[in-house]
Amino acid sequence: MPRLIAVGDPADPGIEPYRDIRERDLAGRGGRFVIEGEVVLRAALTLGRFKVESVLLAENRVAALAGLLAGLPDDVPVHVAGRAVLDAVAGFPLHRGILAMGLRGTPEPAEGLIARLPRQALVVVLSAIANHDNIGGLFRNAAAFGADAVLMDEACCDPLYRKSIRVSAGAALVTPFARGGTAAELCDGLLARGFEVLATSPRGAERLGDILPGPRMAALFGAEGPGLPQALLDRLRTVRIDMAGGFDSLNVATTSGIVLHHLRR
Amino acid sequence: MPRLIAVGDPADPGIEPYRDIRERDLAGRGGRFVIEGEVVLRAALTLGRFKVESVLLAENRVAALAGLLAGLPDDVPVHVAGRAVLDAVAGFPLHRGILAMGLRGTPEPAEGLIARLPRQALVVVLSAIANHDNIGGLFRNAAAFGADAVLMDEACCDPLYRKSIRVSAGAALVTPFARGGTAAELCDGLLARGFEVLATSPRGAERLGDILPGPRMAALFGAEGPGLPQALLDRLRTVRIDMAGGFDSLNVATTSGIVLHHLRR
Repeated sequence: MPRLIAVGDPADPGIEPYRDIRERDLAGRGGRFVIEGEVVLRAALTLGRFKVESVLLAENRVAALAGLLAGLPDDVPVHVAGRAVLDAVAGFPLHRGILAMGLRGTPEPAEGLIARLPRQALVVVLSAIANHDNIGGLFRNAAAFGADAVLMDEACCDPLYRKSIRVSAGAALVTPFARGGTAAELCDGLLARGFEVLATSPRGAERLGDILPGPRMAALFGAEGPGLPQALLDRLRTVRIDMAGGFDSLNVATTSGIVLHHLRR
Repeated sequence: MPRLIAVGDPADPGIEPYRDIRERDLAGRGGRFVIEGEVVLRAALTLGRFKVESVLLAENRVAALAGLLAGLPDDVPVHVAGRAVLDAVAGFPLHRGILAMGLRGTPEPAEGLIARLPRQALVVVLSAIANHDNIGGLFRNAAAFGADAVLMDEACCDPLYRKSIRVSAGAALVTPFARGGTAAELCDGLLARGFEVLATSPRGAERLGDILPGPRMAALFGAEGPGLPQALLDRLRTVRIDMAGGFDSLNVATTSGIVLHHLRR
């Protein structure tokens, strides 16, 4: 069982990383990220790639979460506080009553991640996805369909932002990722390693249903609205999802679910 | 061209329905619903099933939206205001600078909607979807894959809530829907009219990929977490989406995208 540490004072220095969580999302928090809720903490502890540094828990949740807490390494402190203290520390009403801090560690560059992919692999490549809901949804689908990596260009937002992790249901802590460089560079890195790279676009040349997945597949997704840059579409195999006509508009995360479901069979 | 009406005073009675939009989401607004942003208004005007009652526009957007406004019927007033007046009326900063009011009209009961479906039809049935993001996402996919109707049980939330419409990219105004009764009643109504009803579940008996769509298909989706009631699963054909194992968790809207994409081919 982990150590339970009672917290009676919102100013307790032991829980400093949890202070004013919303405001600090924007400023970053020195190599840490926030885990919110039971579902995400469970994913972090069972499948996650990141070290969990500490947990902050409402008193009235301790009994119900005993099983989950039993899975924590002994050196991870579990701070326990009443609701009033908890809300005062976090800076907003913490309905789920459970927070944890994870450590980002040293990010792996895309080249290293690509170099160690298995012979049979599925990779998600993201260009300019700047919306935290969409990044979260994309990671959730990547994990659900067993993608081996998510590669993001430098214009993508942070998958370890609080909301991204929550929307991903914890998948952002599970699937290996790298962020940096341009989408063209990421695609070139994959092509050089024998990947087929499919660029998704409403005007793609091939129907998704006609694609026969090979052993090393990558699917590239761009932001809703602008989509992928034409220069990138011109040099890649392009694929489309046929819709009904009339109202042809899909969310990018949903698009990834449909594409990955097809490529995984 | 529609009538442009200058508004200089936030208290102008002509724009009463726009007052304090956020607070009134919860209380309802007397048969009206709110259209936000250019994408949704365009969907409402080109594909929508509801009458647009009026438009409220920021001065600095009039020129850019001239084409869209030209498509308005002559009897629809367009109120034009400066930013300060606009934000004061709406009660929050209105970044998109465009709002409109739609009229709900008389809701059609499910039986009537089912009775007039074409011989070849695809229907989405929703049970206890109480999250406005998910309802919006489900409608967006229903419209993209040409579903003929969305039937919601009485435990579903309102698809004409402001956020639902926005997340649906306007699809909630396009695809015919009915809300009321139980999911079992809705399914029985469809079965009686020769529909095959597929209940989606992570433990479904058949793989989605093995389903050969017939002429009249319906897909039933339940809330994330609890899923569909066992009593309903016991009496319907059940279908699952195979995932990778490990992290088996899909958002319900994404699930609908994958299922409808398969049923529409």
